[in-house]
Amino acid sequence: MAHDLLIRNVRPMGGPLTDLFIRAGRFAEAAGMSGTEEIDAEGHVALPGLVEAHTHLDKTLIGMPWYQNTTGPTRGERILADRKAKRELAIDAGRQAARQIRQTLAFGVTHIRSHVDVDTEIGIANVEGVAAIRDRFKGIVDVQIVAFPQSGMLVRDGTLALMDEAMKAGADLVGGIDPATIERNPVEHLDAIFELADRHAKPIDIHLHEPGALGAFCLELITERTRALGMQGRVMVSHAYCLGMLDPAVQGALIEAMAAEKIAVMSAGSPAAPALPLQRLRRAGVVVASGSDGIQGIWEPWGRGDMLERAKILAQRNGLTRDVDLAEMADICTFGGAAALGLGDYGFAPGCKGDLVLVAAGGLAEAVALTPLNRTVIRGGRILVRDGIVREDFAPIE
Amino acid sequence: MAHDLLIRNVRPMGGPLTDLFIRAGRFAEAAGMSGTEEIDAEGHVALPGLVEAHTHLDKTLIGMPWYQNTTGPTRGERILADRKAKRELAIDAGRQAARQIRQTLAFGVTHIRSHVDVDTEIGIANVEGVAAIRDRFKGIVDVQIVAFPQSGMLVRDGTLALMDEAMKAGADLVGGIDPATIERNPVEHLDAIFELADRHAKPIDIHLHEPGALGAFCLELITERTRALGMQGRVMVSHAYCLGMLDPAVQGALIEAMAAEKIAVMSAGSPAAPALPLQRLRRAGVVVASGSDGIQGIWEPWGRGDMLERAKILAQRNGLTRDVDLAEMADICTFGGAAALGLGDYGFAPGCKGDLVLVAAGGLAEAVALTPLNRTVIRGGRILVRDGIVREDFAPIE
Repeated sequence: MAHDLLIRNVRPMGGPLTDLFIRAGRFAEAAGMSGTEEIDAEGHVALPGLVEAHTHLDKTLIGMPWYQNTTGPTRGERILADRKAKRELAIDAGRQAARQIRQTLAFGVTHIRSHVDVDTEIGIANVEGVAAIRDRFKGIVDVQIVAFPQSGMLVRDGTLALMDEAMKAGADLVGGIDPATIERNPVEHLDAIFELADRHAKPIDIHLHEPGALGAFCLELITERTRALGMQGRVMVSHAYCLGMLDPAVQGALIEAMAAEKIAVMSAGSPAAPALPLQRLRRAGVVVASGSDGIQGIWEPWGRGDMLERAKILAQRNGLTRDVDLAEMADICTFGGAAALGLGDYGFAPGCKGDLVLVAAGGLAEAVALTPLNRTVIRGGRILVRDGIVREDFAPIE
Repeated sequence: MAHDLLIRNVRPMGGPLTDLFIRAGRFAEAAGMSGTEEIDAEGHVALPGLVEAHTHLDKTLIGMPWYQNTTGPTRGERILADRKAKRELAIDAGRQAARQIRQTLAFGVTHIRSHVDVDTEIGIANVEGVAAIRDRFKGIVDVQIVAFPQSGMLVRDGTLALMDEAMKAGADLVGGIDPATIERNPVEHLDAIFELADRHAKPIDIHLHEPGALGAFCLELITERTRALGMQGRVMVSHAYCLGMLDPAVQGALIEAMAAEKIAVMSAGSPAAPALPLQRLRRAGVVVASGSDGIQGIWEPWGRGDMLERAKILAQRNGLTRDVDLAEMADICTFGGAAALGLGDYGFAPGCKGDLVLVAAGGLAEAVALTPLNRTVIRGGRILVRDGIVREDFAPIE
C-alpha cells in the first residue's frame, strides 16, 4: 500500500519555494498532488539526507562513563591507547554503533561510511558487531563498513589474513593506513590492499595522514594502482593532509592526476590539521566528501556527528564566510558524500529516493552558519524524526 | 536583607565534591551553613562566571534578518562591507548588544570586554549605545567597552578626535588596530593610542593581525611603550597571530619581553588563523584570555558566544585532547579572562564574588568536550539562569 507525503513551502538546497511530493518512497512531480500526509515546511531549507563519509562507529564512547584521556599527541601513542581501551573498557562495537547512528539520525544523517577496526587482538569481532547493526538499520540509516587495520597491517603478523576474513564477513570496503609512517613499506602495503580489493571486487578507502612530499608520493602510488586495476571511481583517500602542505604547482599536478583516476577525497576540516584546498579539488573535478571522524572516543573527546555543523567547520577551517561558499560546503556534506559513497538516486529529482532533512533556516548559508536543531528527517516518505525527536517505532522501509 | 545560597554536591573547577555557600553576595565558609535557598548540584562542575574577553557587541545581527554575505576575503574588503552594512541595515548598537548579552548570559558569561566601533560615519554613537546597555546590565553581566577605530585612525581624518570623545563618553579602554597594514605608520599609531590611554588613565586593548616579522616588530613597539609609560598589566594584545608564525627562538624572546611588561594576549582560536602557543605563553607567565570575536555578523556568519565551547575550540585548534589540557583551556576562559580584564575577587575562595555557572558534567574536561547546555548561572548568590532559562525578573544586585 503506497504511502504518499506532500511537503509544502520548502526550499530544496535553499532554492526557491516549492512543494515536494513523495510516492512509494520516491520523489515524484508535485504539481496537483495531495498527500495522504502533509507537512508545511514553513519556507525552510530541505537537504537530501546528510552523508557521513568518515567515522568510526565501533569506537565512540557515547553513553559510557567519561574516559580520562592522558595520551600523548603522537599517532603511535594514540593507537596504543586505543587498543588498551578496547581491552579494558570492553567496548561493545555494535551497541556503540547503534548509539551513534541514532544520535546522528536526529541531525539528519541518513548514510554513513564507517571504518571499523580489524586487529590481532579483537580479530574481526568489531566488523561482525557493526555489520549486525548495519543490517538492522538498513533503509533507515544505510551504513558502509570499511575493514580498517588501525594498528597496522604489515607490521602486525596475521592482520592481512584478518582483513581477508573481514571482507568475507561482509565488510563493504577495504581500508588502509599510512603506508609509510606506520606500515614502513608504502609499495607493499598498497599492493596488499589493492589486491584484496580487486579479489573481493570491493572499493578502497585509505587513511592517509602522511605529510608533505611523503604523502604526495603515496598519493602517486595510489593513483598508479587505481589506474592499473581500473578502479576509477572506487577509491577514496581520507584526510590526505599532504594536499594542504604542498607548493601550489605540485599540488595542482597531483590533483589533476587524482581527478583523472576519479579518486575521491574526504576531509574532516580538523582545526589542528592542514586545511585542504577543497574548492580547488572540486574545480578540478575531484569528488570531495566530509565526515566527523571519531566522536566522543579515545582519539577525540568531542564531536556530535552533525554533518551540517561539519559544513560549518569546513568553512571555518578554510576561512570561507560568503553565502555561496557556505552553500558549497553544504554540498560537500550531501551530494559530495553521496558521490563518494556511490549512492544511487540521491537528490530531489523525480525518481530519486524520498529522503530529506528539514532545517529551520531560510537559506543554505543560514542553515550552515547557525545549524538549527529540532530537524525533521524523512526517508522514503516516512517521517523518522520530527522536530529533533527520533520516532521510537521506526522500522525498515520497503 | 542578606540573601544566602547553599549549593550542595558541587565540583568547583571540576575538583572534589564540596558545598559552596554565598552570603551577602560573596562566597563564605560553607561548613555548617544552611541557606535560605539551596541547590543540589548533583555532582556537577561549577565554573566562576565565564569571561568573554573579546567580542563586538555593536556588530552582531542576532535577531535581525539574514545578512547575505558576498564579501571578499581581505580585511580591507570586510571593513568596507562592515561600514556599508552599518549604513544600510541601521544596526541599533544598544539593542544588538543587549541581545548578545542576554544570549550569552544563558551560557554563563558574566563578564564581557567588547570592542565598539568609532569612525567618522557613526561617530561615537555605538559607544554611547553600548554604554547605556552596559550600565543597565551592571552587576548582572559586567561589560567593558573598548573604543575601537575599526576603519583606521590615522588614515581617516577626524577619527583620533572621535577616539578622545569616546573616552570622555565613558569608554573603559583605548583600542587600536593593525598599526602597519592598516594604519601605515606603526610608530605614530601606537604613540597616539598610548598617549590617549595615558591621558585618560585607561588600559589598552589592541587588535594585532599583522603577520610574522611585521607583527613581531609591532609587538616590540607595544612592549617598549608599555614599559616607558609604566602600563604593566594594563595592555592586552588581541589575536597576535604573529606569535603563531615565528621561529621558536624568536617567538621565545618575544614572549619573555611581553611577560616582563605583563602584557596579556587574547586568542579566539580561529580555525583559519595561526594557532597561538597558548601553553608556552602561560608557562612564561603571560596572561592568556579568549573571546568569541564577532557573533553572527558582517565579519563572520556564525558563533553563539558560549565561552565554554570556546575552550573546546582552543583545544581543537591546538590539537590538545588530554583531560589536563582541556582543563587548562577552561582556565583560560575563566581565570585567564578575569586576570586579563582586571576583575577583582574572582573565583571560589571565601570573600570572592558569589558568581558561578553549573555545567552538567562530572569533570572539567568533560564539560569542555561536551559543552552541555541547560546551565544554571548565579551572580552574587542570585540565580539568574536556571537550566538554561534566563529569569525575566533579574535586576541589578546590590
